[in-house]
Amino acid sequence: MNITDLKTVLDPQAIGEDLHRFATTLYPICRSITGDGFRETLRQIEQFIPLKRYEVPTGTQVFDWTVPREWNIRDAYVKNSKGERVIDFKQHNLHVVNYSVPVHETMSLEALKPHLFSLPEHPDWIPYRTSYYKDTWGFCLTHQQLLDLPEDQYEVCIDSTLDAGNLTYGEYYLPGEVEDEVLVSCHACHPSLANDNLSGIAIAVYLAKALSEVARRYSYRFIFIPATIGSITWLSQNEDQVHRIKHGLVLSCLGDPGKSTYKKSRQGNAEVDRAVTHVLSHSEQDHNIIDFLPYGYDERQFCSPGFNLPVGCFMRSPNSKFPEYHTSADNLDFIQSECLADSFVKCLGVLSVLEHNKIYVNQNPKCEPQLGKRGLYRSIGGSSGTGLNELALLWTLNLSDGQHSLLDIAERSGFKFDVIKQVADALIETHLLKESAN
Amino acid sequence: MNITDLKTVLDPQAIGEDLHRFATTLYPICRSITGDGFRETLRQIEQFIPLKRYEVPTGTQVFDWTVPREWNIRDAYVKNSKGERVIDFKQHNLHVVNYSVPVHETMSLEALKPHLFSLPEHPDWIPYRTSYYKDTWGFCLTHQQLLDLPEDQYEVCIDSTLDAGNLTYGEYYLPGEVEDEVLVSCHACHPSLANDNLSGIAIAVYLAKALSEVARRYSYRFIFIPATIGSITWLSQNEDQVHRIKHGLVLSCLGDPGKSTYKKSRQGNAEVDRAVTHVLSHSEQDHNIIDFLPYGYDERQFCSPGFNLPVGCFMRSPNSKFPEYHTSADNLDFIQSECLADSFVKCLGVLSVLEHNKIYVNQNPKCEPQLGKRGLYRSIGGSSGTGLNELALLWTLNLSDGQHSLLDIAERSGFKFDVIKQVADALIETHLLKESAN
Amino acid sequence: MNITDLKTVLDPQAIGEDLHRFATTLYPICRSITGDGFRETLRQIEQFIPLKRYEVPTGTQVFDWTVPREWNIRDAYVKNSKGERVIDFKQHNLHVVNYSVPVHETMSLEALKPHLFSLPEHPDWIPYRTSYYKDTWGFCLTHQQLLDLPEDQYEVCIDSTLDAGNLTYGEYYLPGEVEDEVLVSCHACHPSLANDNLSGIAIAVYLAKALSEVARRYSYRFIFIPATIGSITWLSQNEDQVHRIKHGLVLSCLGDPGKSTYKKSRQGNAEVDRAVTHVLSHSEQDHNIIDFLPYGYDERQFCSPGFNLPVGCFMRSPNSKFPEYHTSADNLDFIQSECLADSFVKCLGVLSVLEHNKIYVNQNPKCEPQLGKRGLYRSIGGSSGTGLNELALLWTLNLSDGQHSLLDIAERSGFKFDVIKQVADALIETHLLKESAN
Repeated sequence: MNITDLKTVLDPQAIGEDLHRFATTLYPICRSITGDGFRETLRQIEQFIPLKRYEVPTGTQVFDWTVPREWNIRDAYVKNSKGERVIDFKQHNLHVVNYSVPVHETMSLEALKPHLFSLPEHPDWIPYRTSYYKDTWGFCLTHQQLLDLPEDQYEVCIDSTLDAGNLTYGEYYLPGEVEDEVLVSCHACHPSLANDNLSGIAIAVYLAKALSEVARRYSYRFIFIPATIGSITWLSQNEDQVHRIKHGLVLSCLGDPGKSTYKKSRQGNAEVDRAVTHVLSHSEQDHNIIDFLPYGYDERQFCSPGFNLPVGCFMRSPNSKFPEYHTSADNLDFIQSECLADSFVKCLGVLSVLEHNKIYVNQNPKCEPQLGKRGLYRSIGGSSGTGLNELALLWTLNLSDGQHSLLDIAERSGFKFDVIKQVADALIETHLLKESAN
Repeated sequence: MNITDLKTVLDPQAIGEDLHRFATTLYPICRSITGDGFRETLRQIEQFIPLKRYEVPTGTQVFDWTVPREWNIRDAYVKNSKGERVIDFKQHNLHVVNYSVPVHETMSLEALKPHLFSLPEHPDWIPYRTSYYKDTWGFCLTHQQLLDLPEDQYEVCIDSTLDAGNLTYGEYYLPGEVEDEVLVSCHACHPSLANDNLSGIAIAVYLAKALSEVARRYSYRFIFIPATIGSITWLSQNEDQVHRIKHGLVLSCLGDPGKSTYKKSRQGNAEVDRAVTHVLSHSEQDHNIIDFLPYGYDERQFCSPGFNLPVGCFMRSPNSKFPEYHTSADNLDFIQSECLADSFVKCLGVLSVLEHNKIYVNQNPKCEPQLGKRGLYRSIGGSSGTGLNELALLWTLNLSDGQHSLLDIAERSGFKFDVIKQVADALIETHLLKESAN
Repeated sequence: MNITDLKTVLDPQAIGEDLHRFATTLYPICRSITGDGFRETLRQIEQFIPLKRYEVPTGTQVFDWTVPREWNIRDAYVKNSKGERVIDFKQHNLHVVNYSVPVHETMSLEALKPHLFSLPEHPDWIPYRTSYYKDTWGFCLTHQQLLDLPEDQYEVCIDSTLDAGNLTYGEYYLPGEVEDEVLVSCHACHPSLANDNLSGIAIAVYLAKALSEVARRYSYRFIFIPATIGSITWLSQNEDQVHRIKHGLVLSCLGDPGKSTYKKSRQGNAEVDRAVTHVLSHSEQDHNIIDFLPYGYDERQFCSPGFNLPVGCFMRSPNSKFPEYHTSADNLDFIQSECLADSFVKCLGVLSVLEHNKIYVNQNPKCEPQLGKRGLYRSIGGSSGTGLNELALLWTLNLSDGQHSLLDIAERSGFKFDVIKQVADALIETHLLKESAN
């Protein structure tokens, strides 16, 4: 079985439910760019696929950056003078500004307020805030909560630690026929946020599991890393290996009901860019292809000028373009089984194109071969019965001159890649096509 | 006189009538890809231009194909039990499936029906069917005829032969100043079908006759061949000569009232593609330029990857895109004198562009030359009286840097090629332009 | 202070008034392609900037042309039989066909009429006519005047001289850091015509004055020449120097209320073409970018194939596209202070782009640098306070790979050049960017 066959045996409804279930398992964990929440996330992933874990010590220089101290948190709250928890980390881990330094003080509302963050335009949502590189502390709360806080003396407690430790990440490597790699990267550092990016983690894990069971041309590398510092660390530690990456996808925000969005790599016309564009164009669904811009997820690092890797970012609603982004409303209700399944199937479609996008050479390049004598052409009054599309056959023969890949042929002819692949297989079988030696 | 002058002396009405008259002469002949119908067609062409005829024996290997047996037919009919001919080849040669094997049997309607072909959506038209490469027989009839056939015992007779013989084709070669060739190809294997392709044959013949009487830069090769197997055979027999073909046109479906259509060569930007596009763009008529696709007429073979010749296909309504296509409705009424004449004039226009599309070098490239002292520029209050377009003069001087052909200049300036040619001639005469040595 | 700073200290209203005032000074002078009117114009320019004047003798061969005799005129009139001046050069210098040979005769209206030129479609305007290269004489008058002329005997007098003399032009050269030059050219041979081209002269002079007071990367050469013969003469005399011209602008028709128009150089994608396009695109005003055509002003000569210099033409309403063109209606009311100022500011904007459009190399090309530790990035809950656009920062870092200039980055990112320049400066200061050695 190869990756194309996978698509045919797949039950989208079941996979959608599986993906949502896995996101549900991961949701409560309080992740950050370092610490035990990240490790617990990797442990959950390991229920599905074996990971190689890496621990990179605090203080390690990674290009222009330094691996920060490890952050862990046990509890956090703001209590009023009656001892009631008016803000409680145990109720929602977004309540604490991620990477807050420890604090335990009593203070007036006025003194507390500069440390409180809310969203006036969405008074029932808790924002998500971080402060990785500046020592401070804070709480996030709904705007309604904020408005309801009376003048009082508040006991403020963040029971966190920021100590020398490690930055943790996990890798799953699947060897293929060739050492050339497809990289699938997703950040796994966001706490209870479902679309950004439990959806990406879940899909990456299920893709990895599915790929492990089929024949592969490419080798595949799945990495589960903290955002930004994680990809910088990974690139720093794998600088001599990245030349193997021929195609890459950052997976993110893949469960919301918005249309599929693909952000191209910096190269702009890399094979992965064309493969995703092809799959989305033939999806018969509205979609959005956007040019690279140096803002977004870890493609920023993979596409920095010193690497310029062919890595794009596959999403539904893009980061910061949906109101729920980085708020408590990006929860398990916001992501839908069908949307997760649809994203998963499109990812498989893209990988299927990449796996099979080879260049073939027409062995009978002078004039058309006589397809009829090979059973590839209709005879009088009927069709060939082969189920092959004859025009696709002719296109594939015509363009297989050693210069055009199957994706080139699909693009120029307007046929779906799968149709071109199918006729190419028939032509290979009848010795009319042969894989190019180049 | 050169080919451009031809356009000016031409009487379109007369040529249109001549073309239609010639198509009328050819119409009744029962042509096929081999056999005496094809030979008779060549004999008619020879009333206008001398042909070199080729006979290629049955069984000759031509690339992946084999020259088939020669087909000839004397009579064919279906008689009812009263002895009446209910289907009669003598009434219309489309009534027999072309290349039918001989048959003489009596059978029930039920047994006969699988051999009958009609067009339910056009109940008064007879379809055109062939079975070149599968031994079978059949009759085509109007759907009304089919519905009117009662249960009966029918005498079925096709008095045809399928024997070792030859594939016949004809060639007319007109030498020019250079050995570089323009190929004009049309298939001549269709029985009583007027647009596809008596229109093409007639226009090719009259083009050939016209070109024989003028000065020519290029050599011209007109070929009258059976479709598909004919171009394959021709290419097979002329493989070492085809490098001379610098431009080529397949002529087909040129008499119907639809708009002009040009299907580009596989190269897509060959000089002939640009020349036809130019002529159609400046025709002030609606027209259609379509990209190459490996389906259609003999351009399929000329543009196969092993040849990739700069050969496009010039039509009005394209094959299979008009309802009359491959039916008895593609008859002499369907093609119109004015349309034939219009197609002919456009062909001449294209050849005129190709003949004169040279690269010249401005002999005074630094600043503009003083046109006034050469009588090429208007003086006060009047025009130059030369009839020359001054802006076209300036464009031609400006772009004649050894890199731009006259067609390049016409395209970039927006002027019609003829206008650029006219000013180029004036500039050559005043020694301001000289043909490029390259 | 550099050229970018200039834009910030500029008072557009004051500059607009200055420009109009200077045009007013120049308006009454009867200029031609040679003669004292041209010299007087240079003398007026020298009130602002020192010019190097050149006198090129009549008869000098300049490429295909010859410097013509020098034309001067003292008086010209047509008197009726009562001795009244019915056409009077002293009332408007457009009344005489420029370069008219001397004449003093008495003649009938019928004999006079072939020498009279008017505009029936604009009965109150005097046309502008010249006859540089054909010895003749004539008068221009309003159509109303023409209609009012009764049968009479007219005394016709043109008191002009056409003698061996010189063609005069002026140059102002401002050396910069490098010998590479920006050429600013305007014709100064038109008599009382305000938009074409006193507007261009005034703006060129004020640009020159402004540039003389700031630091310059490029050297600048401003030339004030007669049209056509002037640029041909200049190119002929500077043939060995023109390789230094890296960018050039012909300035013309810059004071009318029409939208800004830029006509690209023959190269079509020269840096100056892109710089002007950028400035106009970001002007938030309607504008017009047109392709090169070999008709217009002196760009015709600069862009002749033997030179092909990167010189475009900056205008508002283009030559011959506004009804007032080459008539007495192109007067001081037709040009407006605000329009002159707007054109001036846009010119400065273009020069500012050219001056600062360098290629830089990201010194930390592998992954993003940590902007936060350099004070270039916002921290929690606030903005960086640096006033820098973060996305522009990221684009500049991402594309500064030694292949992209700041203008390339501005074009691809969609940011205004000034914004990219500003962040580039901040990145240079923090040693994240370094000028490319190439």
